[in-house]
Amino acid sequence: MSSDGGSGVRGPYAKGVQRRQEILDRTLDVVATRGIDGASLRAIGDAIGISHAALRHYFSSREALLLEVLRQRDADSVARVADVDGVLPRMAASADHNVSVPGLVTLYTTLLGVSVAAGNEESRAFFTERFELLRADLATQLRDELASSGRYSDADLEQVASLIIAAFDGLQVQWLLDRRIDIAGTLRLLERVL
Amino acid sequence: MSSDGGSGVRGPYAKGVQRRQEILDRTLDVVATRGIDGASLRAIGDAIGISHAALRHYFSSREALLLEVLRQRDADSVARVADVDGVLPRMAASADHNVSVPGLVTLYTTLLGVSVAAGNEESRAFFTERFELLRADLATQLRDELASSGRYSDADLEQVASLIIAAFDGLQVQWLLDRRIDIAGTLRLLERVL
Repeated sequence: MSSDGGSGVRGPYAKGVQRRQEILDRTLDVVATRGIDGASLRAIGDAIGISHAALRHYFSSREALLLEVLRQRDADSVARVADVDGVLPRMAASADHNVSVPGLVTLYTTLLGVSVAAGNEESRAFFTERFELLRADLATQLRDELASSGRYSDADLEQVASLIIAAFDGLQVQWLLDRRIDIAGTLRLLERVL
Repeated sequence: MSSDGGSGVRGPYAKGVQRRQEILDRTLDVVATRGIDGASLRAIGDAIGISHAALRHYFSSREALLLEVLRQRDADSVARVADVDGVLPRMAASADHNVSVPGLVTLYTTLLGVSVAAGNEESRAFFTERFELLRADLATQLRDELASSGRYSDADLEQVASLIIAAFDGLQVQWLLDRRIDIAGTLRLLERVL
């Protein structure tokens, strides 16, 4: 993990990290604005103006690059809605943003879909870990929210967390196929589950 | 079971329908028991003991065959839970059955995932129509259930229908990645939305 392409500048590791991040940012931008669908790693390189060899230096495969794009998107998403009060309003705010970047929602949906089939172990590991962390995180957020508002719920908060994530993913798929679906408005119905 | 394949037996159309159904049933059975993942149409033919040419006679592509398998599964599923009282108990009963046939859940999830990307128009049309019909059907069932039990709900029943389907799909994905997920139990939380 230490080359900047062999140019010998100072801090090759720092340069490499920076270059890798730049590739991620550009790919994310291309996916968000134009979509990516079946594009190969080479085609992605063409679209972001990076040679195939350079891309391969930082990402071992198309799958590896695209999963990192999703990881970056998750981090961006958390930061974007951090100031919104309440778990479901935060999820609704994320959904409202997502409808402006259908290419990223498509990428997420297709990678998730294929991750459950044999032979996509990298995607499977990514999504398995993502859901596990997200469920635990949302359950904690729900617990804190109930406690701080003095409310009580007899619902299993791990189950509620799992339900919110499932509804979010499922509504996005329906929305990709029919733009009349109101993801955020429908998610807000889940307030009633608590 | 002989194919009519131009052999001039009586009722070739009826024979053809029967043969097509037999292929569907066998494919569904193989998917349910062994899974199918990336198998080609030829490999599917090998698995069910049908020549590639015969398969191609009834189904124009792998995608066409597998979408028909999903259509058959939906019909089977409706019939299986028809006697269960209540929309959410019916959905929970379907979920309970589905966990016994993970290969079919995997097939559904992967085809749905790729349907949203460009170049899979047949899958896209199938799922778009499926969701539209399912939402309308569930909303009607919810309306009837509320009316017959004298309950009132201020929730938008089309939205509730969309939410139930989304939660079902999303929970199945989480379950495929982590068998500790309780799809049916989590779906029942949605009773509270009404």
